Amino acid sequence: MLSEFDLIARYFTRPTRHTVLGVGDDAALLAPAPGCELVASTDMLVEGVHFFPDVDPESLGHKALAVNLSDLAAMGATPRWAMLSLALPRVDEDWLAAFSRGFFALAEHHQVDLVGGDTTRGPRNLCVQIMGEVKAGTALRRDGARAGDEVWVSGHLGDAAAAVAHQKGELRLRGAGLAQCLARLDRPQPRVALGRALAGIATAAIDISDGLVADLGHICTRSGVAARIEFERLPCSAEFMPMRNHALVVWAILSGGDDYELCFTAPAARAGEILALSGRLGIALTRIGRIVAGSGVQVFGAGGKTIPVERGGFDHFH
Amino acid sequence: MLSEFDLIARYFTRPTRHTVLGVGDDAALLAPAPGCELVASTDMLVEGVHFFPDVDPESLGHKALAVNLSDLAAMGATPRWAMLSLALPRVDEDWLAAFSRGFFALAEHHQVDLVGGDTTRGPRNLCVQIMGEVKAGTALRRDGARAGDEVWVSGHLGDAAAAVAHQKGELRLRGAGLAQCLARLDRPQPRVALGRALAGIATAAIDISDGLVADLGHICTRSGVAARIEFERLPCSAEFMPMRNHALVVWAILSGGDDYELCFTAPAARAGEILALSGRLGIALTRIGRIVAGSGVQVFGAGGKTIPVERGGFDHFH
Repeated sequence: MLSEFDLIARYFTRPTRHTVLGVGDDAALLAPAPGCELVASTDMLVEGVHFFPDVDPESLGHKALAVNLSDLAAMGATPRWAMLSLALPRVDEDWLAAFSRGFFALAEHHQVDLVGGDTTRGPRNLCVQIMGEVKAGTALRRDGARAGDEVWVSGHLGDAAAAVAHQKGELRLRGAGLAQCLARLDRPQPRVALGRALAGIATAAIDISDGLVADLGHICTRSGVAARIEFERLPCSAEFMPMRNHALVVWAILSGGDDYELCFTAPAARAGEILALSGRLGIALTRIGRIVAGSGVQVFGAGGKTIPVERGGFDHFH
Repeated sequence: MLSEFDLIARYFTRPTRHTVLGVGDDAALLAPAPGCELVASTDMLVEGVHFFPDVDPESLGHKALAVNLSDLAAMGATPRWAMLSLALPRVDEDWLAAFSRGFFALAEHHQVDLVGGDTTRGPRNLCVQIMGEVKAGTALRRDGARAGDEVWVSGHLGDAAAAVAHQKGELRLRGAGLAQCLARLDRPQPRVALGRALAGIATAAIDISDGLVADLGHICTRSGVAARIEFERLPCSAEFMPMRNHALVVWAILSGGDDYELCFTAPAARAGEILALSGRLGIALTRIGRIVAGSGVQVFGAGGKTIPVERGGFDHFH
C-alpha cells in the first residue's frame, strides 16, 4: 500500500518554474513580481455534487484546475501557482495516474507550478487553490461596470448544460454536436489569455459558472447597475440554432452554467479593440447588450418582449 | 433556507485589514510587502478522520485555522490571509455561528484576513488555505539542519494524544490534567510569535503534527543528517511525570502527534539567544538532542539504551 509520502512523490511532485520552494516543506515559498498584486482563489469539487462517481479521472484532473484558472482569467491575472487537496476513499493508482495526468497537462499548458496541498482519506473531495499575479491596479473586478457600457461574452453558451441534459435523458444530442458538448462539459478551456488581454480595456468581468444571467447579475449587484440583454444576440453552437427557442435550450444558454466563458463590460469606444482581440486570439467575442441605470438583468426576445428567467426552471422540462 | 450568498455574507464576511479586495469577486487581491516572499500552505480536515461528528463546532473553527497557522509558524512567517472551503451536508445556522466564532476569534488574534473560499453541499470537509509573508531568504525550511546543531522543542508533548487515548478509554485522565489535555487537543495554540523570532536563529524547523520522531525525521531526510534524542529531556506536562515510562505515554510523547509545537535545530552557539527568547515569549524551549551525520532519528533512554519507536504501535496497547 502506497504511503501518503510515496503518493505525493509519485503523482504530485514535478519540477517547478517560478517557485522558491515547492512541495515538501511546511509551506511553499513564492516570490510575486515587484509591482504586482497577488490574485488568489479556491474551488472545492465534491463527488455526487460536482461530478459523478464514474467520471473519467483524467477529465476530472483537468476540470479541477480549469475552474480555478477560469477565476483568475476573470480577474485578468496570470496564473502561477496551485495547491491541491485531495480526499480519497482509498488509494487507486490507476485513478491517481489518470487524474494527475489531466491536472498536469493543463498546468503545463498554462505554466502553473503545483507547490503544495494535502492528501487524506475520506469521501472523494478535491479542493484546488490557485494563485497568480496582476499588475497592481489593473485587475478586472466585478464592481467597475458603468451605465452605457456594452456587455460582451466570449465563445458560446449552453453546451455544458446541454451535455448534462443529454446525460439525464432530457435532450437528445448525437454525433459531432454531442461530442462537442461533452468536451465542453468535461474539459472546459479557461479564457486565461483573453482575461489578461482585457485588463485595461474591460470595466468589469466574471466567468460564467452559474449561468450568464446569474453571473452578469453579480456584476450588476457589485457595480450598482442593471443589464439589458438581447436573446437573439447570444452566441450558441450551430448544433442548437434550429432548436434555439426550445425552452430547455433557452434555459441552457441563459442559466445552464458550467460555460467557463468570460462575460465582461466595456465602454462602447473600446469595441474596435475588442473585435481586434477576438481576431488575434481566435475567440468569438459577441456584444450581447448594454449596462443601464437600475438593478437586475433583463433579457429581451425577438419582438422586444421580456423573457422570464427562472434559475430553478430545469425541473419544469421533465 | 439560507442561500449560499446569504450564508457567506452572514457568517464569513468580516472587514479586512491588509487586503486589496476580499470576499465577493472571482478572486482575492493581495499585496505582499516589497522584499517579502509569499508563504502558502493548506490543510484539509475530514469528518470521521480528523474530527468526530459531534465535535464542538467552535473548537473545530479554531482548530481548522490553528493547524494552518502552525505551518506558517514553522516557516517563521507572519500569517496574513486565509481562504476557507466548506462542504456541509446541510445548512445548520447554530453550527455555522459557532464554527465561524471559533475561526474568527483565532483569526483576530493573529490579525489574519479571511479573503475567500467556497461553500458546497457534501460530506463535512473543511479545507483552509493560509498565506503569509517572510522577509526574502529568511524562511525556516526543513533542509537547513547541520551536524553539530542542537535539537529543540517548544512547550511540551503528548497532551493531545493522551486526550484521544482518554476518549477511546485507553488511558484514564481526570480533573485539571484532563481539562488541559482536551484543551490542547481541541484548541492548539500555533507558535506564530516563536516561529517569527526564530527566523535568523534556527537552521531548520517543522511543526509537530505527525509526532516528534516522524516530524524530526522529515528535517533529517530533507537536510541529509541524523538526530539523536534523549527521552529523559523530552518535556511533558506535570500530569504525566509519574507515568512517564508507561508505554502509552512514551508513545504519546514520541509519536502521538497533534502537538502543534515547533521542533527546530540551531547551532550550539545560539543557545543563549534561544533561552532568552523562551523567557521573553513565556514559552518553554527545551534542548532535546543533537544533529549528527547519518540518517534517521534515534531515541535514547536513561541508561543510554535505544528506545524503539513504532509509529503504528498504538494498537499494541489494547
